[in-house]
Amino acid sequence: MQNYLHSNIPLSGAMGVQVKVATPVQVLLSAPLAPNINHHQTVFGGSGVVLATLAAWTLLHLRLDLERLDAQLVIQRSSMEYERPIAGDFEAECRFADETAWRRFRLMFERHGRARMTLRAHLLYAAREMGSFVGDFVALAQRGS
Amino acid sequence: MQNYLHSNIPLSGAMGVQVKVATPVQVLLSAPLAPNINHHQTVFGGSGVVLATLAAWTLLHLRLDLERLDAQLVIQRSSMEYERPIAGDFEAECRFADETAWRRFRLMFERHGRARMTLRAHLLYAAREMGSFVGDFVALAQRGS
Repeated sequence: MQNYLHSNIPLSGAMGVQVKVATPVQVLLSAPLAPNINHHQTVFGGSGVVLATLAAWTLLHLRLDLERLDAQLVIQRSSMEYERPIAGDFEAECRFADETAWRRFRLMFERHGRARMTLRAHLLYAAREMGSFVGDFVALAQRGS
Repeated sequence: MQNYLHSNIPLSGAMGVQVKVATPVQVLLSAPLAPNINHHQTVFGGSGVVLATLAAWTLLHLRLDLERLDAQLVIQRSSMEYERPIAGDFEAECRFADETAWRRFRLMFERHGRARMTLRAHLLYAAREMGSFVGDFVALAQRGS
């Protein structure tokens, strides 16, 4: 999964993103401070929202893959709350909690070739929550599938 | 300003961010597709929100600088709407439209050493709007100033 991210989304390589956990129920990504630093010597907010976006996207990607749903996955909107400055290497975690939402999403996708899902992710530093992310993703059936 | 961004926020260098316009009323940044591409061969959403964040941050930074307000500037929250996929080099623009809001911000900062401002930015490709960003920034008086 880490190779997939680095070769398909080069920004993840520039940020030094590492995949710590990647299952269809939980994704945990980490990134070092150095390539993501800002002028206050803390994590640049932009890097925070990128890591959270990648965690959520990866989780949905893995789940689509597991269930062999051939979808193009795009982000429609996102919001990010920056709760505290992050002074070192950091993580983003996204967990899949709502199996009912997934069944609804899957049904919509199979019926209409299009479905939307909202995912939440959190930024972590030294096991504390430092920021929270909400993203709406849309899965579109691939042409010809 | 471009040197300042690249040396203080290395992610802006990795993204190839260029400063096209940087005045206290308008900031226009551009970035090439290649380092910001995704697996659909369009701009990765994370790169879009980063470029918009940088445009808004730079505008507020320049305005604080112009008025010699010695502030630490941090982002508190942001939201991004991805309206259309972007198939090439792209831009983010932030304009300062509301002088009344600025006077209120300045007064708050001088009185309380802390003030918040909401800024909007847009992603552009071939002169069309492709996404919109809203960010809340907080200026804090520097310790000792």
